[in-house]
Amino acid sequence: MDFAAAHPRELRALIRRGELFRPTCGLAPDFTQANLAILPKECAFDFFLFCQRNPKPCPVLEVLEPGQWEPKLMAPGADIRTDIGLYRIYKDGELAAEERDISKYWNEGMVSFLLGCSFTFEAALMRAGIALRHIEQDKNVSMYVTGIQTVPAGIFSGPLVVTMRPIPTARVVRAVQITSRFPSVHGAPVHIGDPRKIGIADLSRPDYGDAVEIKDDETPVYWACGVTPQAVALKSRPSLMITHSPGYMFITDVLNEDLAVL
Amino acid sequence: MDFAAAHPRELRALIRRGELFRPTCGLAPDFTQANLAILPKECAFDFFLFCQRNPKPCPVLEVLEPGQWEPKLMAPGADIRTDIGLYRIYKDGELAAEERDISKYWNEGMVSFLLGCSFTFEAALMRAGIALRHIEQDKNVSMYVTGIQTVPAGIFSGPLVVTMRPIPTARVVRAVQITSRFPSVHGAPVHIGDPRKIGIADLSRPDYGDAVEIKDDETPVYWACGVTPQAVALKSRPSLMITHSPGYMFITDVLNEDLAVL
Repeated sequence: MDFAAAHPRELRALIRRGELFRPTCGLAPDFTQANLAILPKECAFDFFLFCQRNPKPCPVLEVLEPGQWEPKLMAPGADIRTDIGLYRIYKDGELAAEERDISKYWNEGMVSFLLGCSFTFEAALMRAGIALRHIEQDKNVSMYVTGIQTVPAGIFSGPLVVTMRPIPTARVVRAVQITSRFPSVHGAPVHIGDPRKIGIADLSRPDYGDAVEIKDDETPVYWACGVTPQAVALKSRPSLMITHSPGYMFITDVLNEDLAVL
Repeated sequence: MDFAAAHPRELRALIRRGELFRPTCGLAPDFTQANLAILPKECAFDFFLFCQRNPKPCPVLEVLEPGQWEPKLMAPGADIRTDIGLYRIYKDGELAAEERDISKYWNEGMVSFLLGCSFTFEAALMRAGIALRHIEQDKNVSMYVTGIQTVPAGIFSGPLVVTMRPIPTARVVRAVQITSRFPSVHGAPVHIGDPRKIGIADLSRPDYGDAVEIKDDETPVYWACGVTPQAVALKSRPSLMITHSPGYMFITDVLNEDLAVL
């Protein structure tokens, strides 16, 4: 089966039946993939507020009512409890298990947040001929905890995490323009150039993901990263929090291009 | 005193002391003015969800934690309970009073929402030489209840309310481009042309505001209207809901231009 050509609906059905079990990068590339964070109702308002105040690291695509598992707007017919390949279960802020189905953890107080992921803007950069080294080299993108504080909300606060991509210096302005079109998937960069200006001591030692080479004719460009809301939420030690496992995203029915603001 | 040149901080201080009591249109025109809706904590999550799902009629600028009255992000030092000229108090969905200070109604469970208002995009249209008839004629903008349903969220649902502005037909595309830059203040139009296509029977009979003439070389253009969230919220008959009075907006410290996406 040609997974790249399959519709998200078909892919989700295969994932649900356990017949497709792999990271989702490259699947249905024209469609938006999303980060998932599920939190108890008690802290859902504060988390929603945190996302609203920090739209670059936490771009909200869809929020489900407490207890609801069908993302009716972005993936009608889907089930958030079964349609992701691999989930992480956190109890009191600690990783407790990885699961391929979270139905047994479900209760009426769970609130699901679908947040934008960088696949959408990376696809747009590549369509414009801007190659991305971590994809060429089949590595994880480099991620760094910065000295920039997010805007706190209720019980949530913490530092901004960014991704870094080396961009040919002559294409940096174009990369800003391209990613600015997609505010709901991290949008424009947060910084260009010297890592020390945002509190990163050494680009060769990322906090998450893999280091990549930066060539002489390239400039490091930094985008807000979806690890931020997850790190901030776990810091508050919620009794139960469920997320996708890294790389196993939720595939929506929404075309990337439909998220563009202009 | 030249109110148009005063900083929002000064204007809010004058309003707080009762020394400036008038609609805010034309005051500090480079700065963003906001609609206010205050709801009890019990329905605040659902209302937040409703706004997230309907960003054109309900563009969220800032949400305050329950009980908080200082909009720390958009107007540090301000007090949402005193810094608007005139408020409306709704009890069980019915208008109960108009007040110039709402301190006596305040309690720890109240959640304040600041929502974008059309002044910002109207200023941008006028700067581009697109005259607006209701402003020229000192009327209220024409508003219509449409046949378009908003996306429901929790207890909230209802029809979309739009504003209509006659735009010179040769400038309609430009008007779309200009207002697209400002998604957090209603953004791009929802419809252009024939009112019957969106369930409006007669443009000469608006549901709110005043009718205006549409000339032969003009096209009616429709934008989502901030009356929508207020109408939807009141339909749910919350025990207490407080809003600004029409025309008496909250003046923030944020430049209109800082809300532009590109």
